[in-house]
Amino acid sequence: MPGPIQSLTRAAAILRLLAGGDRRIGLSDVASSLGLAKGTAHGILRTLQQEGFVEQDPASGKYQLGAELLRLGNSYLDVHELRARALVWTDDLARSSGEAVYLGVLHQQGVLIVHHVFRPDDSRQVLEVGAMHPLHSTALGKALSAYDPVAHGQVTDMERAALTPRTITGAADFERVLELVRARGWASDLEETWDGVASVAAPIHDRRRIPVGAVAVTGAVERVCEDGDFRAQLVASVRDCARAVSRDLGAGRF
Amino acid sequence: MPGPIQSLTRAAAILRLLAGGDRRIGLSDVASSLGLAKGTAHGILRTLQQEGFVEQDPASGKYQLGAELLRLGNSYLDVHELRARALVWTDDLARSSGEAVYLGVLHQQGVLIVHHVFRPDDSRQVLEVGAMHPLHSTALGKALSAYDPVAHGQVTDMERAALTPRTITGAADFERVLELVRARGWASDLEETWDGVASVAAPIHDRRRIPVGAVAVTGAVERVCEDGDFRAQLVASVRDCARAVSRDLGAGRF
Repeated sequence: MPGPIQSLTRAAAILRLLAGGDRRIGLSDVASSLGLAKGTAHGILRTLQQEGFVEQDPASGKYQLGAELLRLGNSYLDVHELRARALVWTDDLARSSGEAVYLGVLHQQGVLIVHHVFRPDDSRQVLEVGAMHPLHSTALGKALSAYDPVAHGQVTDMERAALTPRTITGAADFERVLELVRARGWASDLEETWDGVASVAAPIHDRRRIPVGAVAVTGAVERVCEDGDFRAQLVASVRDCARAVSRDLGAGRF
Repeated sequence: MPGPIQSLTRAAAILRLLAGGDRRIGLSDVASSLGLAKGTAHGILRTLQQEGFVEQDPASGKYQLGAELLRLGNSYLDVHELRARALVWTDDLARSSGEAVYLGVLHQQGVLIVHHVFRPDDSRQVLEVGAMHPLHSTALGKALSAYDPVAHGQVTDMERAALTPRTITGAADFERVLELVRARGWASDLEETWDGVASVAAPIHDRRRIPVGAVAVTGAVERVCEDGDFRAQLVASVRDCARAVSRDLGAGRF
């Protein structure tokens, strides 16, 4: 079987480069970052630009990601079965809990947020759809890592950075956390990713009993927790939601 | 200067194919739709899959768009200067008008929605970020077509489909509409795209005085209009918003 197509893997590497760090990068820096000849990088960039995947800033001549990626990303969501099945359930969860709800899937050693229901109050909130959240410190990430062997392999191998003083970074400690997740059926994040923020998540399974994602309620620790523990009512609601979506995806009742 | 890289343009064509119509497509259909040999299409699809741009449904073996596109689309938004500058102003516009606000840019003969502020009530609403709206029938599209020569060329050449009985499709009629937009400084859509929905839009200019996007308020015709005309207060708010964002982008005051 032939290997991957070189110009495509290089184009993907350029897009990843533009998606991280500086985000507006000149031709020379693109070429040197990826170890490409300038002419090679230019040919790929020009084609990407022509297809709308890359835009060139007219003032600086630097390159950045293009609008076509937003359009395609939106089309990805349109065909996302998990997200479609979860829309109503996550909406209900946000209403009943009064908190924001995230739906996440495993992607590139992280959690990709594919749906976000705003906390149902009048506050200004930033949409997280398309954002990557850490696998080792979030409730979503732990729910995935506890049940999905691929996620487990990734989270075990990766460097688990201390994002707050409460992040669990040690291998043995982290494995114990995942055991607890499996024993209880839900995962939590108590200021382990963002100061002041706590989350509760539960895994979603499909008809093959494979975890295809996770759903989480997330909010201020003062509201999500009570007397030093996660509010039981909230935990029950999150698990109910995950179960309902799993059922809709064809997962068995037992 | 060398031409575009063939494997890249083919990969882009495959992604566009997966973004439209059926959205889950088998290898044979991908190949025949694009006039490629099956082996060629397979090589591209395998590489796209490896890079996360395409996913294969394990049950049917059909291909669909991949999660990496959502991540990159989100990164595109993060670096979007117009959107960043418009965040606060569009939020204020939604609050003061009580209606949903869209921010759109020209993309592929349509309007790509790059920001959407929900109508500030408790109703369930579908996020339109990343969606394409028609250039010829929406207030956003008319605002762009009236001021942006590229948009004007596209809207003149394209087929202007009748989306409702009120859509303006004839060339001379449409040109008169654009003249009115330029004379008044704002554009409108009175049930020309969706039955029951009316919108008001104004163009946003940058420091080079080039229209870089447009902002619109959109809602039920009963709320957006009054006595058969667009509410003057609403029109003023939309134009104020567009002016404020333009100023933030460096456009001159005169």
